[in-house]
Amino acid sequence: MPDKTVTACLLIIGNEILSGRTQDANLAFLGRRLNDIGIRLTEARVIPDIEAVVVDTLNTVRTTFDYVFTTGGIGPTHDDITSSCVAKAFGLPLSLHPEAHARLQAHYPPGQLNEARLRMAHTPEGAQLIDNPVSTAPGFQIENVFVMAGIPQIMQAMFEGIVHRLVGGQPLLSRSITVTLPEGRVAKDLGALQDTYPDVEMGSYPFNRQGNIGTRLVLRAADPARLTAAAGELDDLVKALGGGGEWDQDLPNEGGAT
Amino acid sequence: MPDKTVTACLLIIGNEILSGRTQDANLAFLGRRLNDIGIRLTEARVIPDIEAVVVDTLNTVRTTFDYVFTTGGIGPTHDDITSSCVAKAFGLPLSLHPEAHARLQAHYPPGQLNEARLRMAHTPEGAQLIDNPVSTAPGFQIENVFVMAGIPQIMQAMFEGIVHRLVGGQPLLSRSITVTLPEGRVAKDLGALQDTYPDVEMGSYPFNRQGNIGTRLVLRAADPARLTAAAGELDDLVKALGGGGEWDQDLPNEGGAT
Repeated sequence: MPDKTVTACLLIIGNEILSGRTQDANLAFLGRRLNDIGIRLTEARVIPDIEAVVVDTLNTVRTTFDYVFTTGGIGPTHDDITSSCVAKAFGLPLSLHPEAHARLQAHYPPGQLNEARLRMAHTPEGAQLIDNPVSTAPGFQIENVFVMAGIPQIMQAMFEGIVHRLVGGQPLLSRSITVTLPEGRVAKDLGALQDTYPDVEMGSYPFNRQGNIGTRLVLRAADPARLTAAAGELDDLVKALGGGGEWDQDLPNEGGAT
Repeated sequence: MPDKTVTACLLIIGNEILSGRTQDANLAFLGRRLNDIGIRLTEARVIPDIEAVVVDTLNTVRTTFDYVFTTGGIGPTHDDITSSCVAKAFGLPLSLHPEAHARLQAHYPPGQLNEARLRMAHTPEGAQLIDNPVSTAPGFQIENVFVMAGIPQIMQAMFEGIVHRLVGGQPLLSRSITVTLPEGRVAKDLGALQDTYPDVEMGSYPFNRQGNIGTRLVLRAADPARLTAAAGELDDLVKALGGGGEWDQDLPNEGGAT
């Protein structure tokens, strides 16, 4: 019996993403890194800095997915409401975390740890800190919810510090081939191949690069033997259609298969 | 009494976004363009190509938000399930749309409109087409749901063709200033200013550009007079903190205020 899929949801919290002022970069990073350790990013939601929305959404997703990651809203300003929303969602008081307090005291010159910055040392009671090697102010974990910064450089550093706390299943391995056929030419045979390999996820992504039309076909599976077998049949299939194509060197963080 | 806020939700449908293989570019575009016409992108969800998830999510968001936009999953391959999911969500049959059919017949050379491509001419019964000036295969609208392609170039062209069907409220105008102060220095006074202007949304976004630490402060409001007044007070405030700063030339599509 295959392992149960371990699922995760990302909550991107911030008006600046929804207004289009800031381009999110955390989703793609998290999707790749989670896959490395056998956790599937199954959903992501982008929500505004509105307390009721954040609290309700948190309570929905933390009981639906194995892991929840949040990004954004843990700075010192009035619009940074994530920590207090997480406390409300769990029905816990928000209180000064002694270790977070000590870190901020060590970080700021005397007199500069003002009231606003002190907000960044508050967590729901009982939270476990997430280190911030970039700018000190920590994130935190409470049960299956991991609260991280929105700035990608900090978020990524925080994530690397908590990877050991996450328990994944079997990572999906992947292979992809870029073919010189339009999607509509390969669709029927690809659909038939998908029926033959229900355990291999097959995706088809058309592109138009300065008039060069083609399709990237992506196979993903937990079982390397099945992946290799499906890739072999797909290779035959595109050749039979007169398309040919090149198998991509998959990036290591996409789970490069043999 | 202020106009009711007109809300929208974006559903980004596709495993390739969640796996991190493809970076979404549609959210930021839609957030900006909707704001131009007085519609607020209030939430976005990224969901996988799984029928039950797409149908359930559609039925949740189409009854929660004034408008729903979907991107992705309307091509010719087996993993393109958006149109059939929309039909299921509305309890409508999925059928060949005569006008969509005619457009594809005119587009493809004789014999090339195969079964897979014909899938792209199927819509929930009664749907109104959304033109695709890039590659012909149309999107469609049914009630308050607008189904569009995932490829940004096509999605953007589709959106420009439906703008006239959308009824917005008052657009949010915005001003922003980039200051040479860390966020923690400006937080307290900014919070107090926010309390004075509850109708002006104030956001604070710290940055670290090669060691140059600063903060971008963004004000958004429907009323230009209130926006100007708040901006004036914010300008005084950052000067008093010794930070100074430069007001950005806001982009026209962010609703540049006077």
